[in-house]
Amino acid sequence: MPDDLTVTRAESLLPVLNTKFKHSFDMAVLGIDLGGTKLAGAIFTDDGCILREEYILLDRKQGREVGNLIASMVKRNLDLLEHKISSVGIAVPGIIYPAEGTVWAPNIPGWEGYPLLKEIQIAAGDIPVYIDSDRACYILGECWQGASKECTDAVFLAVGTGIAAGILVDGKLLRGAGNIAGAIGWWGLERPFHADYKSSGYLESNASGKGIARNSIAILLRKPGYKGALSQMPLENITAHDVFLAHEGNDEVALETIARAVEIWGIAIANLVSLFNPQKIILGGGIFGPGVKFIPAIYEEAKKWAQPISMKNVIIEKSLLGSRAGLYGAAFLALKSFKL
Amino acid sequence: MPDDLTVTRAESLLPVLNTKFKHSFDMAVLGIDLGGTKLAGAIFTDDGCILREEYILLDRKQGREVGNLIASMVKRNLDLLEHKISSVGIAVPGIIYPAEGTVWAPNIPGWEGYPLLKEIQIAAGDIPVYIDSDRACYILGECWQGASKECTDAVFLAVGTGIAAGILVDGKLLRGAGNIAGAIGWWGLERPFHADYKSSGYLESNASGKGIARNSIAILLRKPGYKGALSQMPLENITAHDVFLAHEGNDEVALETIARAVEIWGIAIANLVSLFNPQKIILGGGIFGPGVKFIPAIYEEAKKWAQPISMKNVIIEKSLLGSRAGLYGAAFLALKSFKL
Repeated sequence: MPDDLTVTRAESLLPVLNTKFKHSFDMAVLGIDLGGTKLAGAIFTDDGCILREEYILLDRKQGREVGNLIASMVKRNLDLLEHKISSVGIAVPGIIYPAEGTVWAPNIPGWEGYPLLKEIQIAAGDIPVYIDSDRACYILGECWQGASKECTDAVFLAVGTGIAAGILVDGKLLRGAGNIAGAIGWWGLERPFHADYKSSGYLESNASGKGIARNSIAILLRKPGYKGALSQMPLENITAHDVFLAHEGNDEVALETIARAVEIWGIAIANLVSLFNPQKIILGGGIFGPGVKFIPAIYEEAKKWAQPISMKNVIIEKSLLGSRAGLYGAAFLALKSFKL
Repeated sequence: MPDDLTVTRAESLLPVLNTKFKHSFDMAVLGIDLGGTKLAGAIFTDDGCILREEYILLDRKQGREVGNLIASMVKRNLDLLEHKISSVGIAVPGIIYPAEGTVWAPNIPGWEGYPLLKEIQIAAGDIPVYIDSDRACYILGECWQGASKECTDAVFLAVGTGIAAGILVDGKLLRGAGNIAGAIGWWGLERPFHADYKSSGYLESNASGKGIARNSIAILLRKPGYKGALSQMPLENITAHDVFLAHEGNDEVALETIARAVEIWGIAIANLVSLFNPQKIILGGGIFGPGVKFIPAIYEEAKKWAQPISMKNVIIEKSLLGSRAGLYGAAFLALKSFKL
């Protein structure tokens, strides 16, 4: 990663790049990954090399302000490469309505039916712009430059604040009739229904970052004598990160919380294996991350439940692209001219 | 359905057919549906009209005997239409290995790596033979002539002795890397793991025909004072059919058993809706059947769990082809020259 190239000034990078890389840049593309709290952008060559990347915090920006941030990132990067960028791809945390080019992103206030495509197309001028969901971009990125190269059937299970799946079926993205397939955070894996699952679904309520924090508090409250690490902070401040840290010290609440999460992830993954008979399940998102050390335990849990032949033939592993999976996928959208 | 044409004698049907139908039979195909206990065959015109059909009980036949039964059904039907049949499709209750043309069918003794394609190809002479799994054929049949005409994204949930799903994604069958996608009987929807799920999975153990019978016995045994309909027969003889009958009379064991099944079907369907964002979920197999009267209750349960937008846009309904879904699908294989 050429860290010294990470600049935000709009001056040409071509002289630097031309001496630094042996590439010619006829096929550079811009990938942009919009998250709930930050915006990432990177220029890629067509063989997956990152020429530069930049990150900007959203800093509670809303609606049009976020659109402007993306538009200026596009303009700046086009300038930097003297318009040798041939197309732009954008990963968005929400639902895309391809007919209108609009986006609904629940975590960005004011982004209901937001006309992102039109706005960014104006900023990009005559080069094409492609938009897709973050989960679609995760699996596309891994297929291009990560863990699922050579795969025709694979699932990227993204576990962060929320949970979603990017799914590749026979070499193509699974989109669904209304473009919202992969909403696996809504999976129910335990009877009966509880009102807690109403706003974000059972799986997300129980096994996302938020879910882990929430479950640790519930477990802690059932142990009145507990004096461990997680009792040293206000309950409402506990995060999944704290639970993982406490787990390192064999904290009893953390052990129980993580054991529960491992069981639920294992069942969810088993169900994906039985249903899709994929070559790979890739675990990514902020939780995998620290959660990768539990992949062997998750595998053992999944093995109990899944269709045995499919289970024998699947590989379960961490994302190779980590937090850049969305960026790679967005660039791949651009490279392949993916139209929704 | 031309019942008067259902013959098994190998004499030409063409004179009868030509006066009875206005079709010409240049594109007639033969569909064959192999079940665990019976073999069905039907000749279809290319617009989905059944010209004749026949059913033969397997009568505990094994291995090669079953292969011979299919081969002779093929020959007989080719003779009957004076070789105006252009191709043959076969739905098989198991896993197809396309490279070898072999079949593994757990319910037919001796069918591990059974060389079905080669055998039937010999019987069929120079017309092509296509083989696919029964669950693939169910959804293909409904797409051709049933509930999912015009659908690009739909799931056929087959609930009978076992449970499996035939899945259409963006107009194509979901097959998986090893051709065993859709093994939804293995879905886990309740923690923790129990040894009962080892041989056929949680969903099949709990919500198939067998599962319903088994659960009714477990519920009955927890009610020592119970004197209802299901206590009038030896426990080991209780079938799902008996439970549905007892439910008509508001039998308390049957009510509890069906309520549990409805809850589990509801969760499974919700999970399919959240994952695939399909236009339709079609309920078929022997249980739907009598289970269709519970579709409104299943819908209400699913609605609690599923991604709300996907749920709003999905239609959940019974199979239009009923027990003939596999036959229609097999014919469609033949018509479309589906190669695995």
